[in-house]
Amino acid sequence: MNVVERSAKQSEAEFAAVRRGVVDTEPGDLDAFARAVLGLVAEPGDGVLGRVIAAIGAVRTAELLLERVTGETLSGAVAGARGDLDEREAATGLDRWLPRLDHAAFVRSLGQAARVGAGFVVPGDRAWPAQLDELGAHSPIGLWVRGRRDALARDIRSISLVGARAATGYGEHVTMEASAGLVDRGFTIVSGGAYGIDGMAHRAALASDGVTVAFLAGGVDRFYPLGHEALLGRIAETGAVVSELPCGAAPTKWRFLQRNRLIAAAADATVVLEAGMRSGSINTAGHAAELGRPLGAVPGPVTSPASAGCHRLFREYDAVCVVDAEQMAELAGGGVPVRARGDVRPSGAKRRGGATEVDQDDAALSPDVLRVTDALSTRSPRSIDEIARRSGMSVLEVMGVLGPLELHGVALRHADGWLRRRVRG
Amino acid sequence: MNVVERSAKQSEAEFAAVRRGVVDTEPGDLDAFARAVLGLVAEPGDGVLGRVIAAIGAVRTAELLLERVTGETLSGAVAGARGDLDEREAATGLDRWLPRLDHAAFVRSLGQAARVGAGFVVPGDRAWPAQLDELGAHSPIGLWVRGRRDALARDIRSISLVGARAATGYGEHVTMEASAGLVDRGFTIVSGGAYGIDGMAHRAALASDGVTVAFLAGGVDRFYPLGHEALLGRIAETGAVVSELPCGAAPTKWRFLQRNRLIAAAADATVVLEAGMRSGSINTAGHAAELGRPLGAVPGPVTSPASAGCHRLFREYDAVCVVDAEQMAELAGGGVPVRARGDVRPSGAKRRGGATEVDQDDAALSPDVLRVTDALSTRSPRSIDEIARRSGMSVLEVMGVLGPLELHGVALRHADGWLRRRVRG
Repeated sequence: MNVVERSAKQSEAEFAAVRRGVVDTEPGDLDAFARAVLGLVAEPGDGVLGRVIAAIGAVRTAELLLERVTGETLSGAVAGARGDLDEREAATGLDRWLPRLDHAAFVRSLGQAARVGAGFVVPGDRAWPAQLDELGAHSPIGLWVRGRRDALARDIRSISLVGARAATGYGEHVTMEASAGLVDRGFTIVSGGAYGIDGMAHRAALASDGVTVAFLAGGVDRFYPLGHEALLGRIAETGAVVSELPCGAAPTKWRFLQRNRLIAAAADATVVLEAGMRSGSINTAGHAAELGRPLGAVPGPVTSPASAGCHRLFREYDAVCVVDAEQMAELAGGGVPVRARGDVRPSGAKRRGGATEVDQDDAALSPDVLRVTDALSTRSPRSIDEIARRSGMSVLEVMGVLGPLELHGVALRHADGWLRRRVRG
Repeated sequence: MNVVERSAKQSEAEFAAVRRGVVDTEPGDLDAFARAVLGLVAEPGDGVLGRVIAAIGAVRTAELLLERVTGETLSGAVAGARGDLDEREAATGLDRWLPRLDHAAFVRSLGQAARVGAGFVVPGDRAWPAQLDELGAHSPIGLWVRGRRDALARDIRSISLVGARAATGYGEHVTMEASAGLVDRGFTIVSGGAYGIDGMAHRAALASDGVTVAFLAGGVDRFYPLGHEALLGRIAETGAVVSELPCGAAPTKWRFLQRNRLIAAAADATVVLEAGMRSGSINTAGHAAELGRPLGAVPGPVTSPASAGCHRLFREYDAVCVVDAEQMAELAGGGVPVRARGDVRPSGAKRRGGATEVDQDDAALSPDVLRVTDALSTRSPRSIDEIARRSGMSVLEVMGVLGPLELHGVALRHADGWLRRRVRG
């Protein structure tokens, strides 16, 4: 029995509790156990640890750490598995990780997770959101989940709606419409559980009986922010509250920034609904762009500082302008058809009275049709010669256009010439 | 004396009046005269006439028209000059043009132009806006100008500000700021003289003692719309009111759409400030895009139909998001430096009190600096080992960061360890 197995044996009951509901059987599950240990020692997104795990696996990595090996040994083990980690990197890594290798703290964290009903999900589990693997060496080692373990499994369509804590009424309104509309289209709504836009995205999804997922920057045992304790509890009832940090871990600035990479990586697309020039959502957007995931932003008044970050995303991150749920769904690659609703296109009827009511519809007409229509009067009948002169077209051209216009009821034949039919505005 | 010379002789006084102020000397000026004639017979943007003029020149073209030649003769003349115009195109063109060849109407139009003080500007004149030549066969044959003949001469920086007639208070406010700011940067403001955004663009330019140019869809003898008669009069005092249509020509839908191509072609860049989904400004934007001119649009609330066209331009025309005069000037390629003003960047001071006040500034810090800062307390001094454990960094890494942080006054050395300096929010 190696050191990891011994360690697992000592925390058997606690660990079984956090794996219950994630895996059907009760396996030896050593890989998951090792990942729980490694999740305790490293800060989120530690690329060195990610490379070690990729080379020699989580169990062997945990084993070497529990044996408190030297940098030389760790580096050698990685090299033996055709990985690449020089001795200095290995030593520095161990300097970071070993001070946190505290068995009592680990058992406390597992016990706390079991108490709040959090499950631990790892790569290879059916519930694992494999889209996170695109983060490479910076992928999370495992995820702590309260609620539906598989809320983000790869086959689920999801979209991240994020934005400023200091949201305006406008931003909240647009977020509400967007979130509800995306739920209607079958999307799961991912966000960060914060005040402002995030909170509205979650709330609107819940209100539409949708599934929503909140990523936290600290352990899922402590819902943060405090004012969203009830909201996060409701999210966990039908969706999930997720973190890569073990229970007991406090949110720090660094962890907020790293949490943002998960929000971007978990969803098919990220949309920033309202953000100040220096909002944390810009960071989330940057992660989405880096991952090559579709990035959208909602425009707002240029007079509103709460939209300045969105406008910056158009200019600097090539974000797509999205104004409603339909465009956001399209950005994320579709979703299911929305439940039936009326045709929302504005009526085709338009005022024809004033000659100068020019609009884009006119530009869509053929030039000849437009010019003949211009040349017709609703009051005085005009001869074809007169219409030709007024339109600057030849008589033959005018005759070619008048026929179809008569068929469409736009031009009327009259004893003294041609009239334009009067249309009510 | 050929037919054009004879015709010119008959309208000598009238024509001299419209060329006075455009050219210094009183030349034979037959080319300009021929263009005035041709401007009477063709609708704006008639590409067939454009090709004929390009091949055989305006004088010869007018001569053939005044001689009322056949399509065969016209086609032959163009072929003789290595131009390309088949007999059928030539015949159809003549069918369009000849019915409008009316000497009395021409002299009336010239007389009217002379009465209102309009000048006629043609390619080759110093005042000619050569940037219009990029319209190729669809270039205007000549321009009728009231006000400064050279308001759009090629070396003048100009920007077109256009938008919906049905503007909102928001759109008007943004247009006012933009127009004034662009005048400050040395730009001439081009627009269409319409109600709403156009009118505000002109007014704000005038209020800032700037130069502004209005393109009309009808003759410049009749200011359109009527409610802008006074405004257009003021524009002509310091800037110019311009049209390719002769005096007496009424604005038609076709002419509005063609006028839009001049607004786009005359300026270094086009910016749409507010536009409904089907606004005529979308047509202007399309011309700018087609010409490869920089195209900008100002975002607005997605809840405002008056901004829907701008958002459409982001999505469908790849318009650049511009939120203020500075960004519009940049879009148009600079302009002169604005008159001195205060540094508008928000203060660098930010609240450090709450650990979770994460924003984009944090993302800009190095990860190590951020993590060490996270691990420091403002109240309880912490040892380097403690900081290393909390930050998940090695002791050596922590020491490497603490030094600079102390120098910058962020970290404070204390008898019992290290503190983070308290910063007022």
